[in-house]
Amino acid sequence: MPIFSRGYAARAANQPLSLFSFERRDLRDDDIEFDVLYCGVCHSDYHHVTGDWKTNYPCVPGHEIVGIVKNIGSKVTRFAIGDKVAVGCMVDSCRHCQPCLNQLQQYCEEGSTLTYNDTDRIDDRPMFGGYSDNMVVSEAFALRVPANLDLAAAAPLLCAGITTYSPLRHWNVGKGSKVGVVGLGGLGHMAIKFAHAMGAEVTLFTRSPGKEQDALKLGADHVVISTDKQQMSAIANTLDVIIDTVPYSHDLQGYLRTLGIDGHLVLVGLIDKIEPTIHSAPLVLGRRSIAGSLIGGIEETQEMLDFCGQHNIVSDIELIAIQDINQAFERMSRSDVKYRFVIDMSSLKKES
Amino acid sequence: MPIFSRGYAARAANQPLSLFSFERRDLRDDDIEFDVLYCGVCHSDYHHVTGDWKTNYPCVPGHEIVGIVKNIGSKVTRFAIGDKVAVGCMVDSCRHCQPCLNQLQQYCEEGSTLTYNDTDRIDDRPMFGGYSDNMVVSEAFALRVPANLDLAAAAPLLCAGITTYSPLRHWNVGKGSKVGVVGLGGLGHMAIKFAHAMGAEVTLFTRSPGKEQDALKLGADHVVISTDKQQMSAIANTLDVIIDTVPYSHDLQGYLRTLGIDGHLVLVGLIDKIEPTIHSAPLVLGRRSIAGSLIGGIEETQEMLDFCGQHNIVSDIELIAIQDINQAFERMSRSDVKYRFVIDMSSLKKES
Repeated sequence: MPIFSRGYAARAANQPLSLFSFERRDLRDDDIEFDVLYCGVCHSDYHHVTGDWKTNYPCVPGHEIVGIVKNIGSKVTRFAIGDKVAVGCMVDSCRHCQPCLNQLQQYCEEGSTLTYNDTDRIDDRPMFGGYSDNMVVSEAFALRVPANLDLAAAAPLLCAGITTYSPLRHWNVGKGSKVGVVGLGGLGHMAIKFAHAMGAEVTLFTRSPGKEQDALKLGADHVVISTDKQQMSAIANTLDVIIDTVPYSHDLQGYLRTLGIDGHLVLVGLIDKIEPTIHSAPLVLGRRSIAGSLIGGIEETQEMLDFCGQHNIVSDIELIAIQDINQAFERMSRSDVKYRFVIDMSSLKKES
Repeated sequence: MPIFSRGYAARAANQPLSLFSFERRDLRDDDIEFDVLYCGVCHSDYHHVTGDWKTNYPCVPGHEIVGIVKNIGSKVTRFAIGDKVAVGCMVDSCRHCQPCLNQLQQYCEEGSTLTYNDTDRIDDRPMFGGYSDNMVVSEAFALRVPANLDLAAAAPLLCAGITTYSPLRHWNVGKGSKVGVVGLGGLGHMAIKFAHAMGAEVTLFTRSPGKEQDALKLGADHVVISTDKQQMSAIANTLDVIIDTVPYSHDLQGYLRTLGIDGHLVLVGLIDKIEPTIHSAPLVLGRRSIAGSLIGGIEETQEMLDFCGQHNIVSDIELIAIQDINQAFERMSRSDVKYRFVIDMSSLKKES
C-alpha cells in the first residue's frame, strides 16, 4: 500500500523550499513507518538547497528526525507502534564491508545510503528527508530516544550531537582531558556539552567577543578569542583534543599551537581545502595530528542518545514552523540562531 | 683537564667544511668521553651547512655517532672504558617536564639540547657534533650498541633509524599492518626494513621507476609509482600507516587516498609548508589523519638499537673519508647515495 507523504522541497538550486507531495516506499519486512514530529535544520541542508553540494532535485532535506512509530514490517523486532524513534544522516549501508561489520557504517566502503539526496540500495528510488510528515526506514538504522529527553530538543542530537560525540570518544576524552572547541554553533554548543559531561576542561575558541556568558552556561571553562595573540599564547601546548566545527576554510595554524604533545585537531565541519595551508612544524615537533571525523556509526549513535538520557543533554533550539524554513536558512547563513533551528512538523498540517 | 678535539666545521653558510680544532668541556661526574669511530651524514647536517636552517658558525655537524668509551666521570654507572657507545640527535634535556618524565625528551617543553648547533644547558658553551675525533656526553643520553652490529652501518640508526622506528611503534605497526613508505633515501630505506621486520606488508611509493629491485631487497612487498594514477587507485583505501620521509614540500593528497579508515600519514622529513594544500575530505570521510613525528626518546632509541640487534638490522651505507664530506653533501643533494654516507673518522688522523 503506497505511503503518501507531504514535505517541503527545493525544486532547484537556490530556490525557496515549498510544499511537495510524494510517495514513500511500501513497507518492507524490516521497515518501520513513523510520523515525523520534529526535524532539526543542519548546515548541510542549506548546502544542498543552495546547490553548494551536488544535489538532485527535488530535494526534501532533513536528517535530524524524531517521531512516533505508526506501523511496522512483519519482521521488525526492536520497535512497536507508539515507540519514540529517531533517524540521523544514514538509512542504510552495505552491511558486509569491514567498516560496516565494525559498526562504522558512516565509512561504508560502498558508501552508506544517506537520508536524503541519495537513492535506495534496493529499488533505486530517490530518498527524501525529514522535512516531511512521515518516514520509512529499516529498523537497523532507527534509534531509540530515551524517555526523559524533550523530543524537539533531541532532534539535533542525530547529526550535530553524534558528529561531536564520536570524535570525543574516539580520541579518548574523559576526566581531566583538555578539550578545545572551535566555533559556537549547532555543532560547537554540543561539543561543549558533551566534553563537559565527559569530565573535560573545555575551552571555547571564538572570533567574536561577547559569547563568554553563553559558553560558560553551556559548560565551557574558558573562552579564548582566537584573534588575540596573547590569549592564544597563554594556552599554547596545553590541549589534548580540539573539535573544529567551522564549515568553511579557515586558518588552523594558531589552533595547532594550542595542542600539547600528541594532541589532535579534529575537523568535523570542513569539507573544503585547508586554506591557508599549514606548516608541518607543529605536527613534527610535537607529534600532533590533524584528523577528521564524520558523524558516527549506528551503535555509537544509540550510545550517544543513551549518554544524553543519563546526563539530561539536549540541544538548545529555536522551534520554527515549516513555513519559516526559508527565513531560517537565511538567518542560519549569518549564524543568527542559538543554536539549532528545529521544525515542528505539526505545522505542516496547516497546508491544504 | 681540557679535552682537545679536531673535526670538520663549516665557518659560514655555504662554505665547504674544513679542519677545525676546538675543546670539549671537562668531564663532569656523569659524563663519558669517547673516541668517535663513525658518523653518519644526515640531510639535516646539509641544511645546517647551507644555512637553510638558522645556524651558529663555526658548525661541526654530525648526530649519528658511534665510538668507543675512552674515559668516564666519577659517577658513571652504565658505561666502562672500552664499551661501544652511540649518540644521536640529543645530548640533554630539562629532565623534569612531563614529556621528559614520559621518556619523550625529543619533545622537552624547554627544548632538548641538540648534539650540535646548540649550547650546553650548564655552561652555555657551543655544542659540536660527531664530525670529530671525540665526544663528551652525559651517560643519560648515551646508547649501547648491540655487539653483533657493524659499527659503521649502525651509525645512521641514531637518526634515520629512530626517526622511522618511533612512528611505526607509536602507530602500532605489527603483524599484518599495511605500511606505505614515501621516498627511498636514508630514512625511507630504514622505514622499509623496520616495517618489514615488524611483520607489516610494505609498499614503497616512489616517483622514479627503476627502484623496484632495490626496494624488494630491502623488504618492500610492493612498489607503487606515485605519479601513475592507475597504480595509486589500485591501492586506494588500504594502508594503515604511511611514513613520509620526503624533506621538501610535496603533494600529499594522493597518498591520503591510499589510507584506509583511521589511517595515518606521518611526516618525518618535512619541516615546511604543506604545499599544495590538502582538501579535508579524505580526513573527514575516513577519520584519517596527518601527523608528524620527531626522532624518538632515549629509552625508545635504546629499544630500537636492541630491536636492530635482534633482527640484524643496520643501514645500507657508503663509507667515506672526512676529506670527501663536501663532495658527499653535493651528491646527497641530488639523492645520489644508497642510502647513507657514513664518515670513517680514522680518516681524520691523516690531517696534520
